Amino acid sequence: MLSSEIHIRVRYGEVDRMGYLHHGNYALYFEAGRTELLRELGLSYREMEDEGIITPVREMHVQYIRPALYDDEVIIKTILTKKPTAKLEFEYTMENSSGEVLCKAGTTLVFYDVSSRKPMRVPAFFLELVSPYFD
Amino acid sequence: MLSSEIHIRVRYGEVDRMGYLHHGNYALYFEAGRTELLRELGLSYREMEDEGIITPVREMHVQYIRPALYDDEVIIKTILTKKPTAKLEFEYTMENSSGEVLCKAGTTLVFYDVSSRKPMRVPAFFLELVSPYFD
Amino acid sequence: MLSSEIHIRVRYGEVDRMGYLHHGNYALYFEAGRTELLRELGLSYREMEDEGIITPVREMHVQYIRPALYDDEVIIKTILTKKPTAKLEFEYTMENSSGEVLCKAGTTLVFYDVSSRKPMRVPAFFLELVSPYFD
Amino acid sequence: MLSSEIHIRVRYGEVDRMGYLHHGNYALYFEAGRTELLRELGLSYREMEDEGIITPVREMHVQYIRPALYDDEVIIKTILTKKPTAKLEFEYTMENSSGEVLCKAGTTLVFYDVSSRKPMRVPAFFLELVSPYFD
Repeated sequence: MLSSEIHIRVRYGEVDRMGYLHHGNYALYFEAGRTELLRELGLSYREMEDEGIITPVREMHVQYIRPALYDDEVIIKTILTKKPTAKLEFEYTMENSSGEVLCKAGTTLVFYDVSSRKPMRVPAFFLELVSPYFD
Repeated sequence: MLSSEIHIRVRYGEVDRMGYLHHGNYALYFEAGRTELLRELGLSYREMEDEGIITPVREMHVQYIRPALYDDEVIIKTILTKKPTAKLEFEYTMENSSGEVLCKAGTTLVFYDVSSRKPMRVPAFFLELVSPYFD
Repeated sequence: MLSSEIHIRVRYGEVDRMGYLHHGNYALYFEAGRTELLRELGLSYREMEDEGIITPVREMHVQYIRPALYDDEVIIKTILTKKPTAKLEFEYTMENSSGEVLCKAGTTLVFYDVSSRKPMRVPAFFLELVSPYFD
Repeated sequence: MLSSEIHIRVRYGEVDRMGYLHHGNYALYFEAGRTELLRELGLSYREMEDEGIITPVREMHVQYIRPALYDDEVIIKTILTKKPTAKLEFEYTMENSSGEVLCKAGTTLVFYDVSSRKPMRVPAFFLELVSPYFD
């Protein structure tokens, strides 16, 4: 299992009228989690994209359990749950600093080749980096 | 069945590096859809909230089928799928102006009483307004 | 003088903990105003960008006079104040439906050629479209 | 002079179609800078707001010098430039990790009493904390 953790301080403008982290902004936190998980593997998502491989999100589901509030420091745990094929599947948990679970979520991404404008299978360099975690 | 449609023009700053409406911003479009569905019923979500009843989102799932691009005009169809109890369940489809389905989604909200800080059942005035659609 | 008006309904998630339209989100409304002003001239900002001419914002100043609240319908008036040269200067006023001024703002953009990665002067087709308004 | 520095990694969804940190999102970074400057003084902006003192932004001006790109780590330096009276004035510089200045900005905030719904002068506890820096 391949996982990674980041800490994020909830910003003022990310919070809604109820004082809660707006439910749409969680997507940005998960995205930051994915970027860091890949960086820890030695892979720059930005470089991969600059080279013409993008990974659009195809599905997202989020279960909001307890609100995250302005100025809370939350911990996002990102897990690559399966060896990628044409899909790339991540799961996430968000906890507060007391260890309470605030949110559970999952996203499914696909690999897409910008030049051919077609979906593609997981690139070889990517598979090589993550394979050791799925033996 | 109770449903409503709104048209939204995708804004420049809502689009990401791929040129796609960022997947987190769909939540704002669905929220606008809910606000309009309630307005058409004669109910102001803002006033309900000012009177101390909030409806946090407990679950959201989104299936992204085709990207929405900057300056596309998209149509959000919002459906209240069930007679509300303690939960309020909506489904959404997003289409482009050619009628292609871009996205399907659903959200589950709960009613919450701000003064008692407790979940509550659907308020009577709310149930009365929506009941005719579920006979 | 070249100007244009758009109406925008303030979305739930655009509002902050004070209940005010978050001050960073005004930039999205001004951007929507620019897109519409150009569309009314017969110019698609998206197409211009697809053809390799981008217009990054170099300066923005905003004076927030009265807050815009969730579900308010606001009117953005966008004015192209000068005949463009290397710069493109817009001014904005935001009013509520009672005609009260909520905000005044200005932005300075520059033309930039993506392929040469260099700033450029206003393109001829652009200048031709706006020139009649500055005689 | 009272100042503070924070490091922020630019998120994927904060970046626009040009690949630049969207110009409206800088407001969120400056806000994070203010929150940290106050925290270092021993003041929680969240608690101040919970006690009924809010500080809406009245003016913002931003000069965008070089773009910040996805995954760049930027440094925001926040400076409280004057001893506050009824106004609270901050200046900001954003630099990249090579020390290049990306942006200069300033904001003017006002103190506002939620219960009386009126502007107010700087609270005594606030003035006491910052005064030593302005002798």
